[in-house]
Amino acid sequence: MSDAYTKLMERVRDLGRFRSIEFLLEWDQETYMPANGMTTRAEAAALVSGLAHERLVADETRDLLAKAEDTADRGDFVIDTNLRETRRTFDRAAKLPTDLVKEIAHTSALAKTAWAKARAQSDFPEFAPLLEKLIQLKKRVAEHIGYDTEPLDVLIDESDPGEKAAEIETLFARLREAIVPLLRKVMESPHQPDGSILTRRFPLDQQKQLSRQVAEALHFDFESGRSDVSVHPFTTTIGDSGDVRITTRYSENNIAEALFGTIHEVGHGLYEQGLPREHRLTPSAEYISLGMHESQSRLWENQIGHSRPFWDYYWDPVRRLFPEALSDVSQDEFYAAINRVTPSLNRVSADELTYNLHIILRFEIERALFTDKLSVNDLPDVWNEKMKQLLGVTPPNDREGCLQDIHWSMGIFGYFQSYALGNLYAAQLLEQVRKDLPDLDARIAANDHRPLLDWLRKHIHRHGRRYRANELIERITGKPVTIEPFMEYVTAKFSQIYRL
Amino acid sequence: MSDAYTKLMERVRDLGRFRSIEFLLEWDQETYMPANGMTTRAEAAALVSGLAHERLVADETRDLLAKAEDTADRGDFVIDTNLRETRRTFDRAAKLPTDLVKEIAHTSALAKTAWAKARAQSDFPEFAPLLEKLIQLKKRVAEHIGYDTEPLDVLIDESDPGEKAAEIETLFARLREAIVPLLRKVMESPHQPDGSILTRRFPLDQQKQLSRQVAEALHFDFESGRSDVSVHPFTTTIGDSGDVRITTRYSENNIAEALFGTIHEVGHGLYEQGLPREHRLTPSAEYISLGMHESQSRLWENQIGHSRPFWDYYWDPVRRLFPEALSDVSQDEFYAAINRVTPSLNRVSADELTYNLHIILRFEIERALFTDKLSVNDLPDVWNEKMKQLLGVTPPNDREGCLQDIHWSMGIFGYFQSYALGNLYAAQLLEQVRKDLPDLDARIAANDHRPLLDWLRKHIHRHGRRYRANELIERITGKPVTIEPFMEYVTAKFSQIYRL
Repeated sequence: MSDAYTKLMERVRDLGRFRSIEFLLEWDQETYMPANGMTTRAEAAALVSGLAHERLVADETRDLLAKAEDTADRGDFVIDTNLRETRRTFDRAAKLPTDLVKEIAHTSALAKTAWAKARAQSDFPEFAPLLEKLIQLKKRVAEHIGYDTEPLDVLIDESDPGEKAAEIETLFARLREAIVPLLRKVMESPHQPDGSILTRRFPLDQQKQLSRQVAEALHFDFESGRSDVSVHPFTTTIGDSGDVRITTRYSENNIAEALFGTIHEVGHGLYEQGLPREHRLTPSAEYISLGMHESQSRLWENQIGHSRPFWDYYWDPVRRLFPEALSDVSQDEFYAAINRVTPSLNRVSADELTYNLHIILRFEIERALFTDKLSVNDLPDVWNEKMKQLLGVTPPNDREGCLQDIHWSMGIFGYFQSYALGNLYAAQLLEQVRKDLPDLDARIAANDHRPLLDWLRKHIHRHGRRYRANELIERITGKPVTIEPFMEYVTAKFSQIYRL
Repeated sequence: MSDAYTKLMERVRDLGRFRSIEFLLEWDQETYMPANGMTTRAEAAALVSGLAHERLVADETRDLLAKAEDTADRGDFVIDTNLRETRRTFDRAAKLPTDLVKEIAHTSALAKTAWAKARAQSDFPEFAPLLEKLIQLKKRVAEHIGYDTEPLDVLIDESDPGEKAAEIETLFARLREAIVPLLRKVMESPHQPDGSILTRRFPLDQQKQLSRQVAEALHFDFESGRSDVSVHPFTTTIGDSGDVRITTRYSENNIAEALFGTIHEVGHGLYEQGLPREHRLTPSAEYISLGMHESQSRLWENQIGHSRPFWDYYWDPVRRLFPEALSDVSQDEFYAAINRVTPSLNRVSADELTYNLHIILRFEIERALFTDKLSVNDLPDVWNEKMKQLLGVTPPNDREGCLQDIHWSMGIFGYFQSYALGNLYAAQLLEQVRKDLPDLDARIAANDHRPLLDWLRKHIHRHGRRYRANELIERITGKPVTIEPFMEYVTAKFSQIYRL
């Protein structure tokens, strides 16, 4: 082990310790911090992130990294991964002029406020100039970091390392062509499930009990994590896989939101808890990409949590927990209700079939904005046209249209694709799981999630960031990411439910 | 405002921001952190405290401080306080050689482990060598920082700035002489309350409801604080008076522990919430001393929470909350039970009258150790003799004797006196309150704690660290701290309960 590498890793681990602090400050802010703690909290968070950034881009890091790259024993995958990822992180940070970073922070603070106002008043022109400015600033980021083909690749690379805009668009175009006709058939079916049974009264205490029971059944480890309540559910890791925290939002008139929200976050949490703790605080113990992360949450939430075998087990305990709400409901009706397809204006509440269409719409718009094929002023019209084409619905105003997501106002571009990539990965992975574990459905129906979790641990979690997402998908399934497993899955599932 | 002063204060505020992070890391560790979060948590805490220490003792701090002392506008009490206290903190840190600080940290880590083992096995010699070493190290601390009369003064000054060992011992000797005969009379009284009614079954949900109700009635501000559960109850301030957190321990077979524990921590919390937020993160917004802090917790816990007027209001709601446990109990019996005096071996569970004796014992021993009048090996015998003299009880072993407190194993000396000083301050302050607010008892009996809180805010909280404790006590009451108000209070109270 080279001396420079050892020193570099000590530095990298300190950066991980700073990050653990940043994440705890955020977690506390979202869960327990009293309102009047905000002023000092924001300053403390800025202090830590400033120190961490300084230490990352310091000359000493640059020198240690260069020396470690020269002297470390290559061929050891932990060392290779740590050097490759430290180089990537260092370059992305060090190539950006401080002024540009500050201008982005400043502009997105203004843009967030403008977006909130624009959204409340459904007034896109209020937000447009700052959105335009953020896009220009983000293009400058891409210029500084450098790209082969197009600026958006640099931003995508932050969420999904190695993925390229052009390839994603090709993949998404195929996905869109395949989903839209299936969606049409589903909507034309006379057999529409009754979704209203999910919005009866479901007492909170019992919902919490159910969420805990399911989280434990999925082997979320409460010695290495916890579950709390927050307005916007999330998963965060405070340092390493020994402290993984998920949150859930409960509402009395909706059983689906908290239950499937919990399973979704548990899916993220299981990935984090499965990362190799022996490499904690280094890139070797980090997740591969946001797309891969989303594959884990979606796999558990949709392919397992919304499946027949899962409800073969849970229908009885759930009906016992909520006798008033569910006494006149059959298991089939409940299963159909949680899988009901409803083209809507809103991404967050979208079902399994239409969700990808919301993502594709955003991705196409982002790419057009970053290749100058679309101007910001035309965004609302294009949004509404695409909504009509893809989902058959038209937003009555921009609040329910192109102003619904906060992401762009925060300067986050090249991020949405992760959600749809996650859905495709999940389906492709589960196709392989079914080959490797022929009795999967029987295990799920017996509430035994251990074989599936072990499979994910072995094939994905334990590798940390050793592979890129597509590389790992190909290693596991024999082919790069493709739409077929997803389409076969949704076609079979919804054909059955909607009797197509 | 001098430029150097402004820059110095920005630096001081950054130190406060670091402290806010250290305190959040600790709070989370004691309340919510999953077990496996400990490794990275300890490292993150060490990283932050190391950075904070570096920044405190940096040459830049030294230079800015010297320049600010030369150039700032004196006479403004905020500036004067901030300079005086920053000088004090800087000197205390900068005068200590790094090696000594490290050796103390290392030795107390060993000592804590040895103490835990010694305590479990009631084996003082296991702990003695490390205790001896810690005392020697702490004497070296005193030498480096410097003192006029004796080394213990330096350690006392950390908890109770300005207080001197010799004066405290004189004060405590008088207190001891006054309490012991009163205690004897109390114990000889044939009218002994029945304390067992407090250890019946008190369901946890109702206890939590009661604690919340009382905290709100005492005007603990939940927009600027919160209340959680922890094994060892404490109060911590995450940065400033806008984020003050208390904790409570609940047990089903004890109504007194959680209720009075809550009132005690609320007392601390009210002090913190009352510190002047406009000076947040600077010494002007800090509490005066641990003794003054304890005066606030003890005043609310004992003089209010254990008083007749308080129970004139709370008896009905409490009996309604716990009908099973309290149906055969009268208000007088309950009032006598919560005020029952029982000389015991244990400081933590001691009553209002014997508590000070436990403190005096520890203080006398500490002073003897630091003036070489007592050797560590003789400590257990002296402890047991003093227990007999002061409290009339003899520990059957060292676990229940001189090994009961963790403090010394952590290298904490010159700290215990705060508890007894707090009791004396509280009584002396409340004597003055009664002159200023003649209808205090009526207000308490009406569950209206606003006048008392306003008085404390005005006379104590809002001043932050402007005054030393004894200076403020004299400003408010016209005389330095003395034992008479406390003795008058306990004599009147226990004469009535025990019909002396």
